[in-house]
Amino acid sequence: MNPADLGLPVDVPSTALFTDQYELTMLRAALRAGTAERRSVFEVFTRRLPEGRRYGVVAGTGRVLDAVENFRFDSGVIGFLRERGIVDDETLDWLAAYRFSGDIWGYPEGQVYFPGSPVLRVEGSFAECVLLETVILSILNHDSAIAAAASRMSSAAGDRPLIEMGARRTHELAAVAAARAAYVGGFTTTSDLAAGFRYGIPTVGTSAHAFTLLHDTERDAFRAQVDSLGRGTTLLVDTYDVAEAVRTAVEVAGAELGAVRIDSGDLLLVAHRVRQQLDALGAKDTRIIVTSDLDEYAIASLAAAPVDAYGVGTQLVTGSGHPTCSMVYKLVARAESADPKAPLVPVAKKSSGGKTSLGGRKWAARRPDPYGVAEAEVVGTGPVPAELADHQLLVQLVKGGEVVAREPLDVVRDRHIAARAGLPLSATQLSRGEPVLPTEYLVGRSGS
Amino acid sequence: MNPADLGLPVDVPSTALFTDQYELTMLRAALRAGTAERRSVFEVFTRRLPEGRRYGVVAGTGRVLDAVENFRFDSGVIGFLRERGIVDDETLDWLAAYRFSGDIWGYPEGQVYFPGSPVLRVEGSFAECVLLETVILSILNHDSAIAAAASRMSSAAGDRPLIEMGARRTHELAAVAAARAAYVGGFTTTSDLAAGFRYGIPTVGTSAHAFTLLHDTERDAFRAQVDSLGRGTTLLVDTYDVAEAVRTAVEVAGAELGAVRIDSGDLLLVAHRVRQQLDALGAKDTRIIVTSDLDEYAIASLAAAPVDAYGVGTQLVTGSGHPTCSMVYKLVARAESADPKAPLVPVAKKSSGGKTSLGGRKWAARRPDPYGVAEAEVVGTGPVPAELADHQLLVQLVKGGEVVAREPLDVVRDRHIAARAGLPLSATQLSRGEPVLPTEYLVGRSGS
Repeated sequence: MNPADLGLPVDVPSTALFTDQYELTMLRAALRAGTAERRSVFEVFTRRLPEGRRYGVVAGTGRVLDAVENFRFDSGVIGFLRERGIVDDETLDWLAAYRFSGDIWGYPEGQVYFPGSPVLRVEGSFAECVLLETVILSILNHDSAIAAAASRMSSAAGDRPLIEMGARRTHELAAVAAARAAYVGGFTTTSDLAAGFRYGIPTVGTSAHAFTLLHDTERDAFRAQVDSLGRGTTLLVDTYDVAEAVRTAVEVAGAELGAVRIDSGDLLLVAHRVRQQLDALGAKDTRIIVTSDLDEYAIASLAAAPVDAYGVGTQLVTGSGHPTCSMVYKLVARAESADPKAPLVPVAKKSSGGKTSLGGRKWAARRPDPYGVAEAEVVGTGPVPAELADHQLLVQLVKGGEVVAREPLDVVRDRHIAARAGLPLSATQLSRGEPVLPTEYLVGRSGS
Repeated sequence: MNPADLGLPVDVPSTALFTDQYELTMLRAALRAGTAERRSVFEVFTRRLPEGRRYGVVAGTGRVLDAVENFRFDSGVIGFLRERGIVDDETLDWLAAYRFSGDIWGYPEGQVYFPGSPVLRVEGSFAECVLLETVILSILNHDSAIAAAASRMSSAAGDRPLIEMGARRTHELAAVAAARAAYVGGFTTTSDLAAGFRYGIPTVGTSAHAFTLLHDTERDAFRAQVDSLGRGTTLLVDTYDVAEAVRTAVEVAGAELGAVRIDSGDLLLVAHRVRQQLDALGAKDTRIIVTSDLDEYAIASLAAAPVDAYGVGTQLVTGSGHPTCSMVYKLVARAESADPKAPLVPVAKKSSGGKTSLGGRKWAARRPDPYGVAEAEVVGTGPVPAELADHQLLVQLVKGGEVVAREPLDVVRDRHIAARAGLPLSATQLSRGEPVLPTEYLVGRSGS
């Protein structure tokens, strides 16, 4: 079976309609004005982190590459645009032939970012680049928001595994991307089968309260589950009385019972009691999994509790208070023609309201202090200072329209852990604060 | 072109993997225990509204019907489940033959709801119903959250049109569902082409700052846009200096200029100045569209400003502070066999932590006061009191596995406006408060 048949978010035949209408009307006007082919540089960045957050996490880059590769206008899409009269025939012909042929550079997925970090840079003609704005921002804004929350939770959880179980709290396909982003941010497994299918993320899950309620007694339910899934299963013990359920669970499964799950109540207190009870019953290796409306703060508060794993849903898939990033996609430089030798002119909106941006094609580097700990995010135009040359952050992702930087999700996950570990220790404080690195700007002559 | 080819969220060949793994392991255990076929009733409800909200809005029901219809396990999915060892062969055979054959009742889409409202009721065997939990909750929790925010915004906007433009701030497919939910909640148009393609929602959009920056002068950009899109277009006037841009815009397009868009700054002040300037230039019919990080409060604060339309992005697609509802899918009654004559036994979790639910198969009615204004949400088990018979809220959506209640989105949108209009006036106050209707419970003998 082809993943596309499931409508999963990446391997769809076309991503071209995940686009705001104005991208197409701008294209239409630029084609007519003769400016569509001007060589252009767009950058994705954010002016600020969500309030109180210490760092951001780049996630979704792999999905962006898939989206760019699949961004094409087939006859069905063209027919729709014609019928609606959104663009003229000249533009439709141009779209029918569309394939992105430019270059994309970006922070590698899993890397951390700060205000002003050019997390993605898209270069090509104005026409081919402007069309990608919406789908690129959709993916990065969503996935990076989830990964940032996941990273805070995985910091708080330390070595204890984290289970992503938020599918029911978000759009069914956003859930698949959320499970992927959670994995990038340090989660261990997911309950979402589509995420297992599409991205190979390990999946887990055993039973819900409905299963206990279906049966005449809790004992019947536990026995049915153990008969089917084995003694290593996880029994849910808070449908009726927790202490009685734990006793029944060990009676049914023996001391080899894999785990018990607690989904309500005062988790700190209940976990201690259940641990004592399990130990007293000889089930010293039976693990305790907790899963009730957890966020990074609740996880941190359970650090001293005898908890072996956390299941996180709502707060993960909603970005723990920040369900989207504020990444924007801005034209930062353009030439007066398609000629690769024509100089790039930095451009930027200049208006009231604090939305001013820095023009020019940018590089970025993370400057380490003498001990190797990051001390500043340096963003600049023009030549890269020699001492920063080895600390540059952008890597090439697409070259002449070809994706050149696909990588397994485990590589991305490891990169995130390493990148986070390279930040000052205060990065992992959960309390509100300023970004853990300052962003410094070095404005040189704009590169061409 | 088939919409399925785009991977859009509804018409996918299968929705069966939008499922938490435990649904399948519960099925496996119940099949083995002989309890899988027990006649069961599951209900979707929420224990509370998001803090301060006066009412909820049911949205996504149409998408749920599509998801149920497409919920099947083809050979690719079966192969994945086998390879992962998630269920045994007996269960795989059962899944391969799966088609939902039960009944679904629910609040019609667009209706409002309150804590405890049984917004959806799914009846059939335990096995066939339990599998649908995740995908049903994903859809309703997401879409209802967006529709609730949209409804507050459309209340605040009054007769002025609302443009949905949040695609870039949320997952690319969640964006399509969000545009649909926004339309249900009273929005007028969307910028998202996929939403236009899939759901027929009117689409709009003209240009961004990049288009102005691409050109050598703002005048060149405006001329290019007007040449291509006509004088009725909307020119973006805040790239450099707003007053100068407005002057240039009218010089280029004449007094027939369709609209100007303001995307930054003090919108109240700028809108007044721009209106004065447009009027002085003779462009009295040129409209003013504002689009800068609006939410329902910002929209309300602009009620006295000379604004003709609002574009809303981030705050809409993130549910204006509440990106998900807390709807749950609970087994509320089950028989001891598949026999339709076997009595339904009410069931409910009883545990600490405030998660106790009311068991039993429920009806719901909205009781009007003598003036026809709703005064209470009445939720009950057993017989419906005669005086409430004509005010019942649940309608049949699926009968014996067949969808029986498809309807056009405009019908849903009109229903929402009517349902909101039937609530006490305080429903549309934006300030925080209690749900505008109390929920009253009438516990009778559980119906069978």
